[in-house]
Amino acid sequence: MNDLPTTDQPAADHPEPIGPPPVIILVEPQLAANIGATARAMLNCGLRELRLVSPRDGWPNDQASAMASGADEVLEAAKLFPDVEAAVADLQRVYATTARHRDMIKHEVTPARAAQEIHQAAVRGARSGVLFGRERIGLTNDEVVLADAVMHVPLNPRFSSLNLAQAVLLVAYEWFQARDPTAERVLVQAGHEAASRGELFNLFNHLEGALEEGGFFKVAAKKPHTVRTLRNILLRADLAERDVRMLHGVITSLLGKPRQSI
Amino acid sequence: MNDLPTTDQPAADHPEPIGPPPVIILVEPQLAANIGATARAMLNCGLRELRLVSPRDGWPNDQASAMASGADEVLEAAKLFPDVEAAVADLQRVYATTARHRDMIKHEVTPARAAQEIHQAAVRGARSGVLFGRERIGLTNDEVVLADAVMHVPLNPRFSSLNLAQAVLLVAYEWFQARDPTAERVLVQAGHEAASRGELFNLFNHLEGALEEGGFFKVAAKKPHTVRTLRNILLRADLAERDVRMLHGVITSLLGKPRQSI
Repeated sequence: MNDLPTTDQPAADHPEPIGPPPVIILVEPQLAANIGATARAMLNCGLRELRLVSPRDGWPNDQASAMASGADEVLEAAKLFPDVEAAVADLQRVYATTARHRDMIKHEVTPARAAQEIHQAAVRGARSGVLFGRERIGLTNDEVVLADAVMHVPLNPRFSSLNLAQAVLLVAYEWFQARDPTAERVLVQAGHEAASRGELFNLFNHLEGALEEGGFFKVAAKKPHTVRTLRNILLRADLAERDVRMLHGVITSLLGKPRQSI
Repeated sequence: MNDLPTTDQPAADHPEPIGPPPVIILVEPQLAANIGATARAMLNCGLRELRLVSPRDGWPNDQASAMASGADEVLEAAKLFPDVEAAVADLQRVYATTARHRDMIKHEVTPARAAQEIHQAAVRGARSGVLFGRERIGLTNDEVVLADAVMHVPLNPRFSSLNLAQAVLLVAYEWFQARDPTAERVLVQAGHEAASRGELFNLFNHLEGALEEGGFFKVAAKKPHTVRTLRNILLRADLAERDVRMLHGVITSLLGKPRQSI
């Protein structure tokens, strides 16, 4: 595993996005709680601009705030619009999320692809928006037509009903992910220095010497293979200096000799 | 856009996963509603095996069912365990989700990377599980130690608190995505045949002839460039046969001649 990056600070600073982040547009949302959960999901992924087209239960709404779990800055900045055309008028790029396919000739993209397209458009200064329809019936065909492309989340075809805020979360997550610099796999060192090869070789010698003394290598011909196996086990463990010191103590302790200070 | 795949059925059948899908393990979940929402998120992404370690409010629980929105098969098959060790005993690979970093030397992976690793392990028949901790305090350090690696969802560092079921959704979504064959971008044809080049050339001729007749090309030297621009507009629109017929009618109508039947 030594080919992997190591770090004490795995939470790399997320870079500020280049150009404008996408706007999330909820079209006639029925439940204020879903608006609040949407704000939370947006802020989780660094999105702040929420637009509401004629929310059913009026606006502002206390129930939204209760579900936002602290994402009030998104709710407070939310803007109201009378219809989809007004809500997208200043945007250069619009996606319409749909759960079912419509009888129209239209590009359809995954959220991951849309995230890339939105970032690419933003580099040129273009503003994007993503339309989410009513909880029960989604967007009308006339609303879908206003978008450049339909966005469809690939899910289990036998159980694909997503809650509104969860749909927003997946779309926002893909946008966040598309520029996230977090290493896919990293050894978190928690402040401990990795052992040097020399320290590891000392540990190998200590262990192999102790085993030799104890008669562990019964068949001389098999010893080289056994030694390689033991060394690989220890190397795969990505030992820190601290771990090496502890293992010296473990070997000494198992030998029944007075314990080394670790 | 003609280099993109086109289809009438953008919802490609999701292939059955090779090998066992991962098990989702909730450790001492406090709210039954979160268990139900977790079951829904799991089934959205094709996961069915849920394990519960000592749920606070007892099990089974009606509130879980209310939040599962139809994912009852997951709840009904859920298994109860007294502790994490028992819940993971039959698994070959275990991930521990954490929101904060622990003082231990441990590999840390993104959900996307974990999804690849889980699929790769499953091909060899290995079973994986993902541990999710208590809503308020997560997993204890002694529980995290039992995992091969820590899984951390990259999110807005200034607002990273995810609801339990949303965390499960993101992890399950990455697993589903890792083998999903959906084309990233596709032109949905909705049963309509794409126009042939010959049909497009007829349309170009119709339009350019009509414009020529109307004196649109005032400066002869500019005509080739204008023609190319018009043709590119029409080609970018990915016209179907039906659209071409309609545009012939539009041109004729604009010319003020009797309308062609479309």
